[in-house]
Amino acid sequence: MDIYEKSLELHKKYQGKYRIESKIPISDFNDLALAYSPGVAAPCKVIAQNKDEAYTYTAKGSTIAVISDGSAVLGLGNIGPYAAAPVMEGKAILFKEFADINAIPLCLDTQDTEEIIRTCTLLAPSLGGINLEDISAPRCFEIEERLKATLDIPVFHDDQHGTAIVVAAAIINANRLSGRSMSDLHVVISGLGAAGVAIVRILNDLGVKSITALNSKGVVNRNNQPNAMVKSLLDQELILNATEKTTLAQALVDSNVFIGVSVAGIVSPEMVRTMAKDPYIFALANPEPEIMPHLAIEAGAFVVGTGRSDFPNQINNVLAFPGIFHGVLASKAKQITNEMKLVAVHALANILTERELKPTHLIPGAFDERVVPAISQAIVDMVEKSK
Amino acid sequence: MDIYEKSLELHKKYQGKYRIESKIPISDFNDLALAYSPGVAAPCKVIAQNKDEAYTYTAKGSTIAVISDGSAVLGLGNIGPYAAAPVMEGKAILFKEFADINAIPLCLDTQDTEEIIRTCTLLAPSLGGINLEDISAPRCFEIEERLKATLDIPVFHDDQHGTAIVVAAAIINANRLSGRSMSDLHVVISGLGAAGVAIVRILNDLGVKSITALNSKGVVNRNNQPNAMVKSLLDQELILNATEKTTLAQALVDSNVFIGVSVAGIVSPEMVRTMAKDPYIFALANPEPEIMPHLAIEAGAFVVGTGRSDFPNQINNVLAFPGIFHGVLASKAKQITNEMKLVAVHALANILTERELKPTHLIPGAFDERVVPAISQAIVDMVEKSK
Repeated sequence: MDIYEKSLELHKKYQGKYRIESKIPISDFNDLALAYSPGVAAPCKVIAQNKDEAYTYTAKGSTIAVISDGSAVLGLGNIGPYAAAPVMEGKAILFKEFADINAIPLCLDTQDTEEIIRTCTLLAPSLGGINLEDISAPRCFEIEERLKATLDIPVFHDDQHGTAIVVAAAIINANRLSGRSMSDLHVVISGLGAAGVAIVRILNDLGVKSITALNSKGVVNRNNQPNAMVKSLLDQELILNATEKTTLAQALVDSNVFIGVSVAGIVSPEMVRTMAKDPYIFALANPEPEIMPHLAIEAGAFVVGTGRSDFPNQINNVLAFPGIFHGVLASKAKQITNEMKLVAVHALANILTERELKPTHLIPGAFDERVVPAISQAIVDMVEKSK
Repeated sequence: MDIYEKSLELHKKYQGKYRIESKIPISDFNDLALAYSPGVAAPCKVIAQNKDEAYTYTAKGSTIAVISDGSAVLGLGNIGPYAAAPVMEGKAILFKEFADINAIPLCLDTQDTEEIIRTCTLLAPSLGGINLEDISAPRCFEIEERLKATLDIPVFHDDQHGTAIVVAAAIINANRLSGRSMSDLHVVISGLGAAGVAIVRILNDLGVKSITALNSKGVVNRNNQPNAMVKSLLDQELILNATEKTTLAQALVDSNVFIGVSVAGIVSPEMVRTMAKDPYIFALANPEPEIMPHLAIEAGAFVVGTGRSDFPNQINNVLAFPGIFHGVLASKAKQITNEMKLVAVHALANILTERELKPTHLIPGAFDERVVPAISQAIVDMVEKSK
């Protein structure tokens, strides 16, 4: 049986990967009177006076929702809310298993931006945070931005920031090994979807000065009909206005970092050979990377990261979202700020000791138990300091 | 410490009465590959072909939501979505503890009928059913009716039907003891909110021919400015056009059943004495019944039921909703029909043996373990037969 057959069997056996449990047994009238009527009126009245007391007397502070419209499900595309459910349930149990966070998987029967925003807004009273998942670009940008602007609970679109945080930590550690600084890097990013745009932003925040970006039509610049998102990245000078280049091959010449969040097999060993000495290659397309690691290494790559667990340096966003949500819930932060994301990047980068750090071990593995506490604590410390 | 102080302490200790658990431990890359990426693509693809497969491969078939807008919370009124959360969490754990159903408590930040309907509709893909809770009349009627008409999962407003089902079962058993039939009964119902209207409907379905109803202005009839709901009950001849009566005292004369779902302290022993011989009194106002049981008994009542566990014959809707949802989820029924509610009434009424049945024991207690299986099985049998 291959992994897909095994997974199908597993899902059929469990009929749902999560369950809800009562923390309080209800076995007699006394239990009923305390947990429900009439005793429950007491916490209700306290919260009615001050809604922040919901964090004290209800599950709000330990519960988030994983919300998707099923429009951009990993590797499967726009499969809708019913078919997206196994992924959202999976994400929910990762929150539980990695960070002991209660996560409710909710797949919405709409792909309308306004309806998604409104539904998340109406659900907010019961939630301590919202993890948006697998919502297609460019809608995902507007949905996250507007919810962040109006809600008083953290909202995080993991497809954007999760990957960006982990790849940024890996680049910091690659620099440690190579002696480069962020301002030395000439980065080429292939793919300007949710993850690509977030990577552009976080690398700028970390001091990268030179990013050439490609979307499905090639290198983007002001002359080749940029869409609104590309225009905004150009206007903010987050990416270069690379008018003299058209193809990925041209863009890669003399660059020293490639980050692919796009399609399999588009980077050849010849292209890697035209890059500056000792380049970093992050070929994150799943399941087939933009270039296989051994080919990149043979062509001179200093480090290679992929999205896969069977190669070194897996850029897995399970390294980011559990710790980040754990930190914001623990600190009752109202938002996940850019500053917090950078704090998370550095906390993740600093986990590996000098002894552990090497080109084939830039970041901790997904099951490294140091990760969640380190990121969570870094965020809690940051929130404490800013009080 | 009184019960309210104890409850407050309990709620503070647990900070949420429910938690979410993973059914599948994630402790290595193999677990991750099966429960999440890449294996999860397999069930996604199967569901994308046929959305009914969500019942096989996800938690849909075992998960409902308890949804409220906090507009009519038991005894507390319109306290809003934050303050309503302890009640909804309580209801959710009752679903779990009584019927092993996963129930997600969701309090919506709107009291707009259209928005509540739309939100429930958008959440439906992840749910096997919706229990509407503590939504004020008359909005609750329209919300439930319209959701039932459009969704392919069961929708149930417990405040309406839960109480109605349990009081109907109690009346059937009171008839067994008294030898009366439904058509012998002259019923007076005080209160035409969610529960009152549902009681009117179910008693008509069971063969009651004479119901006089009162709302906060007194006895309703065509001449005293009936609202839309009262008009519709009159038009359908579900209640009498009681033009010759104005007050509860007048309505009770010669009646033989009083059902109060209204406000405390309005039925005097003198009023009970004017009723026909051996009347049934269901004084369901909480926590203070319309008349205290001992006063009603002294005044000649044959049976007395209240909403309280410290008196005999508690009309507790925990006797209804767990078994009903268990039955519809087990049978994958798309709706909770009127017929199912009647089946539930009879199943509940039939649980007590001849030996057990007596005026002070008309229905099983809330913790009687026969209740949920009996109601669930009766619904499953009904669905099977109708196939």
